Amino acid sequence: MSITIIPVRGLPIIHPGDDLAALIAKAAAFEDRDVLCVASTVYSKAKGYIRPLAEVKPGDRARRIALRDREDPRFVQAVLDETKEVILEHPFILSVMESGHIGVRAGVDRSNIEGDQVILLPPDPMAAAKDLHDAIMNRTGKKVGIIITDTCGLSFRRGQTGVAIGWYGMPAIRDYRGDKDLFGHVLLITEEAVVDEIAGFSNYVMGESNKGVPAVIFRNMDCWSGHDNLFFRPEEDVIVAALKKCRD
Amino acid sequence: MSITIIPVRGLPIIHPGDDLAALIAKAAAFEDRDVLCVASTVYSKAKGYIRPLAEVKPGDRARRIALRDREDPRFVQAVLDETKEVILEHPFILSVMESGHIGVRAGVDRSNIEGDQVILLPPDPMAAAKDLHDAIMNRTGKKVGIIITDTCGLSFRRGQTGVAIGWYGMPAIRDYRGDKDLFGHVLLITEEAVVDEIAGFSNYVMGESNKGVPAVIFRNMDCWSGHDNLFFRPEEDVIVAALKKCRD
Repeated sequence: MSITIIPVRGLPIIHPGDDLAALIAKAAAFEDRDVLCVASTVYSKAKGYIRPLAEVKPGDRARRIALRDREDPRFVQAVLDETKEVILEHPFILSVMESGHIGVRAGVDRSNIEGDQVILLPPDPMAAAKDLHDAIMNRTGKKVGIIITDTCGLSFRRGQTGVAIGWYGMPAIRDYRGDKDLFGHVLLITEEAVVDEIAGFSNYVMGESNKGVPAVIFRNMDCWSGHDNLFFRPEEDVIVAALKKCRD
Repeated sequence: MSITIIPVRGLPIIHPGDDLAALIAKAAAFEDRDVLCVASTVYSKAKGYIRPLAEVKPGDRARRIALRDREDPRFVQAVLDETKEVILEHPFILSVMESGHIGVRAGVDRSNIEGDQVILLPPDPMAAAKDLHDAIMNRTGKKVGIIITDTCGLSFRRGQTGVAIGWYGMPAIRDYRGDKDLFGHVLLITEEAVVDEIAGFSNYVMGESNKGVPAVIFRNMDCWSGHDNLFFRPEEDVIVAALKKCRD
């Protein structure tokens, strides 16, 4: 069976206080077991997870980093405020966030918002996904999987892709442990990050600039069993361990 | 317009000498401007890029790594033979390949092949994509974009996803440099790795184990302009630089 992917078009520009789920439900028709990807930026704008830079007071560290990297020190402070642990300071801040997500500049975004403000990631992206899941269910009666996406660079490759930072109604990872291949060998590659694969393609459909498509529906999906341990425990992450060893 | 994604089903198990493009063209109907993703494993099997482990003679380095990581020294030697530069030796070999692709164990695969053999990545994945593009064009008269995929881990996250290692008839990266956002600001995130976003979702459709879907068609795509500089130049790659600093 083929999979159909439907961009949600015609949403207005989102402002704090808007009912995002109601706007999406009005713009699109859902079926049970669809997967809905929503850009974290529009969720954050609707919920008011934004900061005017005029209200940010940069500290010493932010001023030092800003000087070195020619950034606005208020922007750097906003990034540090969203960062649980700094893995790299230079040439960009690489942040571990409270949610477990690791990303450049803590996902703080200066694009697609009016004036001198920044958009923050939702502080609890898993709760954000559940919130949207329940609101879509209430509005439409349909039970859909939700993925909250962010745009991130990949290691070793130029260019951003979409990744999942929160999800609900579906697992993050398809787990093949114990499965056998076409010839009966037990599989060596055993866990697949399906939420990232779906989030990545939703980012392709959304585009980055000015297409105004902040939500994408995936239909005829088969991603309903697996587990949710998407983020490494610190001792499991070889790359982070190496980066910290260099930093310290 | 919605995008349709069609798994190519019903392909036989591929063996060296098989005409993969002919088999795919027989199993699927194409339209101009489709994108066809093909798993590197089936391309390599058709072209004979496989090695019986019995013919691999492990050297000292392979024996040393195999002892530490409890691997088959012949397998480790096969990985080293495909590796242009070793970035990490332990807990897994992280390889830079001749193509510029960086991946765990040089993408050498022990799954989905008969007996005591390994599947290598195509030595020139860009040429592999052009080869398939031309062969599909000859068979069907349709001009399609081609992506050759590999399965890789992401940094900072558990679970594998699909990535692009070769492509033809389409660019790797959508380039927003100079574009403006919804509010007229010049965009800060400016390059999007669309081949990886597409390859990732094709990996979701293929599945890992025994679904027997090594090729996926994407229809109604809009990915025809951009550039091809997917792989960093060594001096651009912050993560690799840090890993090497630790290693040395």
